[in-house]
Amino acid sequence: MDYAKESLKMHYELRGKIEVTPRAEVNTQEALSLAYTPGVAQPCLEIQKDISKSYDLTRRWNTVAVITDGTAVLGLGDIGPEAGMPVMEGKCVLFKAFGDVDAVPLCVRSKNMDEIVQAVSLFAGSFGGINLEDISAPRCFEIEKKLIESCDIPVFHDDQHGTAVITLAGLMNALKVVGKKIEDIKIVTSGAGAAGIAIIKLLISYGLKNVIMTDRRGAIYEGREGLNPIKEEMAGLTNPEHIAGSLADVIKGADVFIGVSAPGTLTGDMIQSMAKDPVIFACANPTPEIFPDEALAAGAKVVSTGRSDYPNQINNVLCFPGLFRGALDVRASRVTENMKFAAAKALAGLVSEEELCAEYIIPKAFDPRVKDAVAAAVAEAARKDGVSRI
Amino acid sequence: MDYAKESLKMHYELRGKIEVTPRAEVNTQEALSLAYTPGVAQPCLEIQKDISKSYDLTRRWNTVAVITDGTAVLGLGDIGPEAGMPVMEGKCVLFKAFGDVDAVPLCVRSKNMDEIVQAVSLFAGSFGGINLEDISAPRCFEIEKKLIESCDIPVFHDDQHGTAVITLAGLMNALKVVGKKIEDIKIVTSGAGAAGIAIIKLLISYGLKNVIMTDRRGAIYEGREGLNPIKEEMAGLTNPEHIAGSLADVIKGADVFIGVSAPGTLTGDMIQSMAKDPVIFACANPTPEIFPDEALAAGAKVVSTGRSDYPNQINNVLCFPGLFRGALDVRASRVTENMKFAAAKALAGLVSEEELCAEYIIPKAFDPRVKDAVAAAVAEAARKDGVSRI
Repeated sequence: MDYAKESLKMHYELRGKIEVTPRAEVNTQEALSLAYTPGVAQPCLEIQKDISKSYDLTRRWNTVAVITDGTAVLGLGDIGPEAGMPVMEGKCVLFKAFGDVDAVPLCVRSKNMDEIVQAVSLFAGSFGGINLEDISAPRCFEIEKKLIESCDIPVFHDDQHGTAVITLAGLMNALKVVGKKIEDIKIVTSGAGAAGIAIIKLLISYGLKNVIMTDRRGAIYEGREGLNPIKEEMAGLTNPEHIAGSLADVIKGADVFIGVSAPGTLTGDMIQSMAKDPVIFACANPTPEIFPDEALAAGAKVVSTGRSDYPNQINNVLCFPGLFRGALDVRASRVTENMKFAAAKALAGLVSEEELCAEYIIPKAFDPRVKDAVAAAVAEAARKDGVSRI
Repeated sequence: MDYAKESLKMHYELRGKIEVTPRAEVNTQEALSLAYTPGVAQPCLEIQKDISKSYDLTRRWNTVAVITDGTAVLGLGDIGPEAGMPVMEGKCVLFKAFGDVDAVPLCVRSKNMDEIVQAVSLFAGSFGGINLEDISAPRCFEIEKKLIESCDIPVFHDDQHGTAVITLAGLMNALKVVGKKIEDIKIVTSGAGAAGIAIIKLLISYGLKNVIMTDRRGAIYEGREGLNPIKEEMAGLTNPEHIAGSLADVIKGADVFIGVSAPGTLTGDMIQSMAKDPVIFACANPTPEIFPDEALAAGAKVVSTGRSDYPNQINNVLCFPGLFRGALDVRASRVTENMKFAAAKALAGLVSEEELCAEYIIPKAFDPRVKDAVAAAVAEAARKDGVSRI
């Protein structure tokens, strides 16, 4: 199917992929007096006395804002806030279909970080959570950090942390397949954008010790010239021996490759230089760093991509709907590392020991168990971390 | 019925009066690839090339933001943004039920005018219009003015202009009933808040010459001490003879009383001092300045209130759904005076000459003709004024 052509046609026909639907009737004078004036004054007064009642008396308990500035939409780059809206509406459809979450798309007409933070945080009282989307790196790190500080609801940049959670889930199971432990392995990554950095931070939190990140200029190490602040931070957290060199140089002997970069970055020769039973996450979208057939032919044991037409798809829809579902269910004030670990474990745990194999390390996107499993685990972790509010 | 108690119960049961509903399916891999990646890239690129396509390819064409800072919610005063949400959700229900408009409630956590303007205008690319609601005077005037300057979509403070349009509609027909013309009559008002000021400004634009506004301290006139800037502006536009005095003083000989103030402000004695066939708009809510029975007993010819249990209800639902419907239908960039006049005329015109009488000057809230009549008139006026974009 010509997805571009068919999707455009569908968008012209639909004229919007979401709508706002009433849950209250206003078709009689009495109904109007209950849903609106004069009756509505009473729920207003209840919330005035206790703001937490906004979670009981309005839709806030189930509503998430999906926010972009349009600077890094899909792989299209900085196409502007209005042009990002079809993706945001799509995300809102996924929130409802996969998480029973009401999501509102908001595109912000500014690239100024402080302006974005201020505008979004002023509206935080209308929502139970904030999902940031398609904001360019390194701006996304600062915007997320400041929003977490200024908002009393979960703020989650899905391009970073959703991808990281699912990659961790896949890695948990891939390591079972190859019989290795996270604290013993060496990982080499390609790509040091938002997703790549979030993945490595989460894996390090989870126990990874030996990792070298690479970007277009090769290995990232402390002291390399021209690193931006976030890469400098990552240099301090990774590559303890300050190894320089190209991806081909540093991948030698590595157990796992994680790519969130560009097509063709990884070659069969590189895979052949890795340790026994290489694990390959080639997540560049839509064309991976290496295609699964070629990777397997070069000796890869487990291969995962972002594509639905190959096994082991890293698909963000596995995480964000259930994660927000769980966070909303306990009125979480933020998303903790343990909530992300819990989501990853829940996802990995859906693949039973009997089913687990090189071609099945991650549940499929349409697995109906995903939402509830992730939501329950996230809610429990939020409670344990003391960030739940019911 | 105990509306307060029943409404509270209903709100606890519903847990939100609106929800966000998908219009696209994502239940198969193929559907997902059309509504989301990879297909969704194509509509994004179309909008990047031509931002006006955001009205064709996303829900923007039908979506309005309903925005409050919670400072003047119903008659409850400054109860805070979260506490204002039940009213905003109710408004969104009305937008859909009466105007087929998708409305998104946004409560802003600031009372600073510049912060509010900045936050709202940064999100204008997500919407086809902005409805301001329950923002305290005189702040609402400045906020609306600045938003109109900074946004390329209609900005409409319903508490002001919705009320003004319906009052004008009612006045058009009331004057027919009593056989008077707007340019000949004297109007006295009580209340110089957002609604009172907007009503008088619209009536003056429409041809009213002789009007005296009063507030709690009596008649407003140029040079009265302690006037705030907006009342000073109104003093310059009204009361050309600089008449001082109480409402009881200045109402003598007036043809029309318009109250948007407080219960009990108007007495039968005052009505008896008015010109022949007094017309009374007693719109304080829920308790009017004078009850219709008492007003009629004192000689009033036509009486209108904000209440549904008396004839001639001034109900905002008569205006904003159809007005925004019309503005959205032609992608208006703003709301002009002529669009408001057109809405008022369309409303007044729905009462046929045969039906027109003292007890029926305004269509009923549930009159099914209202939306289309108002929308068509507003759209036509927008085209004539050159503010339409299709």
